[in-house]
Amino acid sequence: MAADGKLKYPIIAVNEAETKHFFDNRYGTGQSTLDGITRATNILWAGRRVVVGGYGWCGRGVASRARGLGAQVIVTEVNPVRALEAVMDGFQVMTGIEAAQQGEVFITVTGGWHVISADHFAVMRDGAIVANSGHFNVEIDIPALVAASVSRREVRPFVEEFVTADGRRIHLLGEGRLINLAAAEGHPSAVMDMSFANQALSCEYLVKNHSNLASGVHVVPREIDAEVGRLKLETMGIRIDTLSAEQTAYNESWEEGT
Amino acid sequence: MAADGKLKYPIIAVNEAETKHFFDNRYGTGQSTLDGITRATNILWAGRRVVVGGYGWCGRGVASRARGLGAQVIVTEVNPVRALEAVMDGFQVMTGIEAAQQGEVFITVTGGWHVISADHFAVMRDGAIVANSGHFNVEIDIPALVAASVSRREVRPFVEEFVTADGRRIHLLGEGRLINLAAAEGHPSAVMDMSFANQALSCEYLVKNHSNLASGVHVVPREIDAEVGRLKLETMGIRIDTLSAEQTAYNESWEEGT
Amino acid sequence: MAADGKLKYPIIAVNEAETKHFFDNRYGTGQSTLDGITRATNILWAGRRVVVGGYGWCGRGVASRARGLGAQVIVTEVNPVRALEAVMDGFQVMTGIEAAQQGEVFITVTGGWHVISADHFAVMRDGAIVANSGHFNVEIDIPALVAASVSRREVRPFVEEFVTADGRRIHLLGEGRLINLAAAEGHPSAVMDMSFANQALSCEYLVKNHSNLASGVHVVPREIDAEVGRLKLETMGIRIDTLSAEQTAYNESWEEGT
Amino acid sequence: MAADGKLKYPIIAVNEAETKHFFDNRYGTGQSTLDGITRATNILWAGRRVVVGGYGWCGRGVASRARGLGAQVIVTEVNPVRALEAVMDGFQVMTGIEAAQQGEVFITVTGGWHVISADHFAVMRDGAIVANSGHFNVEIDIPALVAASVSRREVRPFVEEFVTADGRRIHLLGEGRLINLAAAEGHPSAVMDMSFANQALSCEYLVKNHSNLASGVHVVPREIDAEVGRLKLETMGIRIDTLSAEQTAYNESWEEGT
Repeated sequence: MAADGKLKYPIIAVNEAETKHFFDNRYGTGQSTLDGITRATNILWAGRRVVVGGYGWCGRGVASRARGLGAQVIVTEVNPVRALEAVMDGFQVMTGIEAAQQGEVFITVTGGWHVISADHFAVMRDGAIVANSGHFNVEIDIPALVAASVSRREVRPFVEEFVTADGRRIHLLGEGRLINLAAAEGHPSAVMDMSFANQALSCEYLVKNHSNLASGVHVVPREIDAEVGRLKLETMGIRIDTLSAEQTAYNESWEEGT
Repeated sequence: MAADGKLKYPIIAVNEAETKHFFDNRYGTGQSTLDGITRATNILWAGRRVVVGGYGWCGRGVASRARGLGAQVIVTEVNPVRALEAVMDGFQVMTGIEAAQQGEVFITVTGGWHVISADHFAVMRDGAIVANSGHFNVEIDIPALVAASVSRREVRPFVEEFVTADGRRIHLLGEGRLINLAAAEGHPSAVMDMSFANQALSCEYLVKNHSNLASGVHVVPREIDAEVGRLKLETMGIRIDTLSAEQTAYNESWEEGT
Repeated sequence: MAADGKLKYPIIAVNEAETKHFFDNRYGTGQSTLDGITRATNILWAGRRVVVGGYGWCGRGVASRARGLGAQVIVTEVNPVRALEAVMDGFQVMTGIEAAQQGEVFITVTGGWHVISADHFAVMRDGAIVANSGHFNVEIDIPALVAASVSRREVRPFVEEFVTADGRRIHLLGEGRLINLAAAEGHPSAVMDMSFANQALSCEYLVKNHSNLASGVHVVPREIDAEVGRLKLETMGIRIDTLSAEQTAYNESWEEGT
Repeated sequence: MAADGKLKYPIIAVNEAETKHFFDNRYGTGQSTLDGITRATNILWAGRRVVVGGYGWCGRGVASRARGLGAQVIVTEVNPVRALEAVMDGFQVMTGIEAAQQGEVFITVTGGWHVISADHFAVMRDGAIVANSGHFNVEIDIPALVAASVSRREVRPFVEEFVTADGRRIHLLGEGRLINLAAAEGHPSAVMDMSFANQALSCEYLVKNHSNLASGVHVVPREIDAEVGRLKLETMGIRIDTLSAEQTAYNESWEEGT
């Protein structure tokens, strides 16, 4: 909207705060996505081939937690650098169409459109489970799944079984909407607290400073971000060091060291 | 009972089958215990100090899955060899009384009696969560918790908050009964299938062979155990190798090699 | 030898002691095998496809440590129960011939014969690395590799490059002998201490009790095993609990609990 | 230097390239630091308390690999957000002085000055091992260690044993210089290739564009970074998807979705 000149007032992109997306998106989405799928299906994760679409902060959270529960994780990505990170983090990386043939559970966390589409449904195994934890319900091309199917019924709450013309069952969870909200309780409060603190402090900042802020997208001020981190550590009873004056001086210098 | 001469007929200890306790107790209990606590409390596991009482098959499952979700895991054990394994698996190992002061979530999986008792409750932090996933509801000394408390109320389904005389809140989950059964759906079918197969095939074996079996405890016949494993792999679509005649001969020999 | 009636005196199978094979074979071999291959080749483990042949105690150590360094681990096994454990521990499991086509590094830890043979060499990728950390130098069929090759040269200490007739390079490490001994320093003393303690105490036991011991294979007495574990914990400064009389009584009872 | 107006020509900060610091610093330093310490000391990592000073890209690599080898990892940090990430990644986080009392191995990866100093040496356990893998040999305050000691001798190559006045032995590795270069072979070529590619392509870019570049620090052009990533994946034989025109359009839109 800003690029199109349609944004008529200043906003703060709270999601860009370090104490938001590093934590909420990674640890929150990671845990709660798996939780939502578990509640919907009661599957055993150990040994299961799980395909994670997207290796952004949410994707890494989901991939990490799926592995932590014993799954074999396959990652798909369109960004080469992120794909490389996934490989070096020990995950299998391949194209979506290759992954579609191997996976047992598919989780989209891309924020994109039709990440799982007709081509993928055409080659999935019988019994495949498909869920979204990215953004809107367009990451999975649900109309394509409907078109490919001869029947559709709810087999458990939040689990719809589609049967394809060639007799394979594909399970869509929570109508393709965010599965952690659909089938579980969303993110734990212990991680939302940081996100909400950023929102509250950013609102306060906007109220106090709006006259000096141009229309457009602003970042969360660094001091707010750091303060949220500091407060969170304090509530957890964790103490850390601070730099001495000499250490700060060294960090800012370029004349010392060999 | 057998040792006391009170066991009057042959039984088969299905829990001792490799395809039972290696899987059901480890991967089943591991996942479903965490699942039960998540559903009861919706806590974030990442960064949480979790104390696992007991490092048998269930304990290793719980410890491994808690770590997989980002927790800092502390193990308590009475068996030195198991304690050492826990250490070398990267967990902190300490006495129960030390752990009681550090932990945020406590999970007993010992099969024993009063693993968490008055001494431990006396030093726990405000907000501690206590759950059992071992055997009976005697692993946690609930009467001691009641005696130490001035109030008791349900704050969420399966979560009772006790307030101690000095004002600390301790949360007991599921009345101290198996939390995976109390608050979740128990083990996934993908791991119970092996346990039930052992039970069914052992029953068949008893019917066919009871006349030749003395009163007492018998193990699951090796062939049943191996057959359950073979069938499970087959249903998962996983193929493995078999030894050639030369390889078997080599394994049984003692004359070759330098 | 015992089965063949060729064993003429009592021996104690020290490798069967819990404080030996749980630790030395798993944590010792796990770390030192990777260490040996790293010193021989200086490869990056992150993202590398590593095939571990065998999922006994050594195999799980190697698989676990390879994953810990960021590798994608494939396990091959002939025992269905162990294969299932590998799957549920999150590893890919497949036949040797499938693994041969995918792997970049191959490590045999089976104690068997010709685990990697002509069929496997025929399909390996250019640049494959083959090492043994199991038992004798017959796990890898070296004569078959020689027969399949048109040239052979040392490219780094402990690294021989074979070039096959179709131009693929296959690297054999340490002449197929135990790579942790060939190219590194073997197991760290912090794990060998337990193995040596078992050996020393078992020798003492044999000297004191040989007149009462039949010819054949005996296990390490339970008390020795437990004492080694106890001493090791003590030297690490780790304290654990002991059972109270009531707890022991409960463990031995069968009348309590619901 | 740029801030001080002392930088008289354009330079490109290659370390800031994603295909440099995400990989070289994390996976390269992570593995090679542990490798260097292993070669210097042959310690067993399983169960060892390892203190990692700093949770930047190098620190997370070291912490991750140490845990992967079975160590209990403690992280120290001065940045609250990074400290929180370390906690949520499952590591213990505490002040340096607390860590100094618990650690068995200390690894500095901060790029800072005197991260381990007299106060820390004063409380370390007998047998502590101290190494640096950050930047210069000033991260460890070696003069302070010398001042606190009554003797100093080499006990293995790259291992100096200092004995303090109260009889504790503290082992300094590689004179406090980068331990992966001192005692091992530095980073594997499979990760340096990306760093060198960035350097080579950035040099070419400087040669071609220097007339248009102001004096000061420039970032690696995005296209170079992405091209290095693309080429690396290709050499590893890994294929990924590309976005369709519709998908790109969706990503750039703000009008769709509910």
